[in-house]
Amino acid sequence: MSQVANSRLSKQIAFINEVEKLKLVERQNFAINGARKENSAEHSWHVALMAVVLFEHSNDSSIDIFKTLKMLLIHDLVEIHAGDTWLYDEQGNRMKSEREKLAAIKLFGLLPREQEHEFLELWQEFESRETGEAIFASSIDSLQPLLNYLHTSVPYTDVERPIRSQVIEKKRHISLGSEVLWNLAVEVIDKSVDQGLFRASTDDV
Amino acid sequence: MSQVANSRLSKQIAFINEVEKLKLVERQNFAINGARKENSAEHSWHVALMAVVLFEHSNDSSIDIFKTLKMLLIHDLVEIHAGDTWLYDEQGNRMKSEREKLAAIKLFGLLPREQEHEFLELWQEFESRETGEAIFASSIDSLQPLLNYLHTSVPYTDVERPIRSQVIEKKRHISLGSEVLWNLAVEVIDKSVDQGLFRASTDDV
Repeated sequence: MSQVANSRLSKQIAFINEVEKLKLVERQNFAINGARKENSAEHSWHVALMAVVLFEHSNDSSIDIFKTLKMLLIHDLVEIHAGDTWLYDEQGNRMKSEREKLAAIKLFGLLPREQEHEFLELWQEFESRETGEAIFASSIDSLQPLLNYLHTSVPYTDVERPIRSQVIEKKRHISLGSEVLWNLAVEVIDKSVDQGLFRASTDDV
Repeated sequence: MSQVANSRLSKQIAFINEVEKLKLVERQNFAINGARKENSAEHSWHVALMAVVLFEHSNDSSIDIFKTLKMLLIHDLVEIHAGDTWLYDEQGNRMKSEREKLAAIKLFGLLPREQEHEFLELWQEFESRETGEAIFASSIDSLQPLLNYLHTSVPYTDVERPIRSQVIEKKRHISLGSEVLWNLAVEVIDKSVDQGLFRASTDDV
């Protein structure tokens, strides 16, 4: 093995060890038995698998699903340094972009140069939600917590339950990736309102 | 949306909800802070990302890395019904194959017919470790717990620490997928012996 190969491999292993920390980043949702919060590593696995299973429902069938998968595997890595920001946390989300940008530079900087660039570009493409791959990846990323929340049926405890109209507004972009999955999402949101997991209106306490 | 589409989607969502349970399957290794065991969903995410990062070290550069990724995303799903069998548990491993086969049929049977077949075949291909994709996927799957074990440095508590020669024997197949990663694995095993995470011999208690 040449020195160059050695040095590349050491950098890759440093990165692989560092991302271990994603297993400690807690989300607001719970894992299935309700005993503990879901973490971002589990979530990342779940969305990657969902993308494979649900690919046929993409509005755009010409997207590169392998690229979509890579995006989903790395999309939350910045949370290792920046933490998970809950979708409905308006204040947290105002500062999120800058915080995550710095985190991405720090984290992907562990990799050999051209992988650093590839991953940074993939992450920025995901965040910009402009290409077909990023749009579909974002749809899946937004659908997973809706399915998980209804399926586990553990109401949010540390935060106020969002209102239906707020959920619809935050999730509407799912339709850009898949009309079929957006129809499903609306059904899931309405069932969740029926079960008291989301509030129907601000009067609903 | 046609009825057929509806019915396909319901099956896919039933599967996606069912695999949520992988987040509850505990492994022998710990997550990074040592506070709790790693689970198979996190492990599946970690190996999928590792396959992307380490692909250049595959002995066979002509493998379909997208197929490898799909294998790694589903390779442990059978544990939802069959449980995780620790690599060094000889008794558990004798019955493992039959138990996991039944679990695969039950689990993938939730999906629409042709996805059921695709996933069953992918899983069987992974298990058989004969194709280039399965051989590389297995190398990554076997390397991840070695890296995690040394990095977290939490000695096994519920089970006896394996002996170096036993670890070498179980992990030697990594070389079939990647000579470079096998060289790395041996270094990692030796460092782990130095730190008392594996025993040097049976005399080492």
